[in-house]
Amino acid sequence: MQEVYISGGGMTKFGKRKETLVDLMVESARKALQDAGKDKVDALYVGTMNPEEFAAESNIASVVADRLGLVPVPATRIETASSSGAAAFDEAIYAAASGYFNSVLAIAGEKMTSVSTDRVSKILAEVIAPEERKYGATMPALAAMIIRRYIYKYGMKEKDFAEVAVKNHKNAVRSPYAHFNKLISVKDVLRSKVIADPLKLYDCSPISDGAASMVVTSEKSRVKLRGLGQGSEHVPLTRRKKFTTFQSTKIAAERAYKMAGIYPEDISFAEIHDAFTPFEIIGSEDVGFFEPGMGWIGLKEGETSKTGRIPINPSGGLKARGHPVGASGLAQVVEAVWQLRGEAEDRQIERELKYALTQSIGGLATNNMVIILEAV
Amino acid sequence: MQEVYISGGGMTKFGKRKETLVDLMVESARKALQDAGKDKVDALYVGTMNPEEFAAESNIASVVADRLGLVPVPATRIETASSSGAAAFDEAIYAAASGYFNSVLAIAGEKMTSVSTDRVSKILAEVIAPEERKYGATMPALAAMIIRRYIYKYGMKEKDFAEVAVKNHKNAVRSPYAHFNKLISVKDVLRSKVIADPLKLYDCSPISDGAASMVVTSEKSRVKLRGLGQGSEHVPLTRRKKFTTFQSTKIAAERAYKMAGIYPEDISFAEIHDAFTPFEIIGSEDVGFFEPGMGWIGLKEGETSKTGRIPINPSGGLKARGHPVGASGLAQVVEAVWQLRGEAEDRQIERELKYALTQSIGGLATNNMVIILEAV
Repeated sequence: MQEVYISGGGMTKFGKRKETLVDLMVESARKALQDAGKDKVDALYVGTMNPEEFAAESNIASVVADRLGLVPVPATRIETASSSGAAAFDEAIYAAASGYFNSVLAIAGEKMTSVSTDRVSKILAEVIAPEERKYGATMPALAAMIIRRYIYKYGMKEKDFAEVAVKNHKNAVRSPYAHFNKLISVKDVLRSKVIADPLKLYDCSPISDGAASMVVTSEKSRVKLRGLGQGSEHVPLTRRKKFTTFQSTKIAAERAYKMAGIYPEDISFAEIHDAFTPFEIIGSEDVGFFEPGMGWIGLKEGETSKTGRIPINPSGGLKARGHPVGASGLAQVVEAVWQLRGEAEDRQIERELKYALTQSIGGLATNNMVIILEAV
Repeated sequence: MQEVYISGGGMTKFGKRKETLVDLMVESARKALQDAGKDKVDALYVGTMNPEEFAAESNIASVVADRLGLVPVPATRIETASSSGAAAFDEAIYAAASGYFNSVLAIAGEKMTSVSTDRVSKILAEVIAPEERKYGATMPALAAMIIRRYIYKYGMKEKDFAEVAVKNHKNAVRSPYAHFNKLISVKDVLRSKVIADPLKLYDCSPISDGAASMVVTSEKSRVKLRGLGQGSEHVPLTRRKKFTTFQSTKIAAERAYKMAGIYPEDISFAEIHDAFTPFEIIGSEDVGFFEPGMGWIGLKEGETSKTGRIPINPSGGLKARGHPVGASGLAQVVEAVWQLRGEAEDRQIERELKYALTQSIGGLATNNMVIILEAV
């Protein structure tokens, strides 16, 4: 199989942005091209969940190719709900590995703040199976049910998973890319408004705008793709065997580790999908960093902090960097590249880093992705 | 480069269908899997333009994977406006050629008749550049301007391009897949309602529902991929150098021929994007079957009829098979496979067929695809 490298990454600041979705995508893409030292690529992938309904943008791959001055390169839009950014990365990898293209640009973004919060919730709820949506199920409501089950099974308390938000806000406190640059306490989390019991406002990632981009190539560079995996899952929750683990992450991780020929204990740090912060805990178990039911204890003991055994979300994660849905999966990979190259500024993990893992959730864990990178 | 074969195809009847988009996709996918003699694949691509707005379907790749019983395989949605079906095919090819997957299922579909015709027009017009859309430009209006220019430059008359619809309806007259099974005359076309002068109703493809699917694999089979190409173009028409040719098709064709190592005169027959029937004429020139401005003369002289030198749209094309936007690009490829295998029933071209070419237009020719297949 053709080896593929990552030669450049770029990201906008995430948050409430005045620019259009296309402006944000173009900004991040120009940074990635500059970082890669390229002004041309052979193909373009654009990951975004729902630009039509969030941002009234259609035919977006062509629009972005045109705005970047890349016409007539092939330009294709990729979508797998909230893991669209990781999916765009995967397609860029397959395209480069196929031998059809030498260098490929993956761009991912979302502009969510142009519509009302109610409208955002409604659009996001469209990923829920119709037979469950018709009872008024929303994403936070279903996530809350999952967390309730985890609490029941493993004895975690609300103050325990509040630590995810506290840690991730701390990691992002000086990040120029993060939606939030604010320290918060466990008390702040526990006192924040209940969204869907036991999830409070500060257990949920914010509604954000932002974009991230990356250049992948078959030419040797400082970061190499070592493994990737994607797994799908039954859409209705009622058809799943377990709630406290996501089968789609486990399958994705298994494939990525197998391809990489390494094990969870080899990973230096990870970016894990924390759209709802307890999902970071479940994710850290699903990718093999902790035994089932032990992730919250590892968190409590500081193992996932920036100085711990396996730092998770040094970027601040979706919670503090923000969660423009389609952008997040690729933003994770950009952060991983910067960390592996020792270029993560104030967020840099201060030790030698060899392997990075990212994990992204699509929909309510119906299409999850795991990516493993290596510093070479 | 890894060789890739097409081992199975399937299609629903196109037209106004009662079934949901997912039902149609599943129906076509089951047929393709059966044709390929497979019950499992390693990955799934779903091409569709705008299921959110046309059919209130979201997270569609996961939903289709689940409905097909394919969980936990990777499932990814692909979109390039009206060429989404061809783009899904291309991604399936890259995925199989990359060595990551052995067999890949590409599905493409659209359900357009659930919303009003006005709403369909509005959704389709979203592919037009905002600076041109704001003056009320619609797809037929811009297509009409392009055709006006062709008429001015090359002396074609309305009765000349009416022959495209007449030919394509004739080709589809006994097709079990076609939206229309009705012979029409030049007089019928000329007397039909004016949509955007000089385009009449019968010069425009209908609003349809439908889906098509295909299995591609690295295992040897009866039809082989020989070439593919994609080309993008400036989105605003005001930024294009020429109207009477689509640069995006020319680039796509050039790449596909180069990869295949063959020439336009080697092609046995073609499926060409005739969403507006004069586009078939432009397309037939852009892929090299005719010199610029000569396509309508070739049509008039019967060269593109089923018994002519280079039969175009033996399926009936988008005009008569119907045009569920995201489905059409893949439906063309399915028809090509059937023709190459001699299994096109009443539509079969009665001679030895070696190479087939398909050409699909995304948006107003902003992202076009050309695919070349070989009977082996």
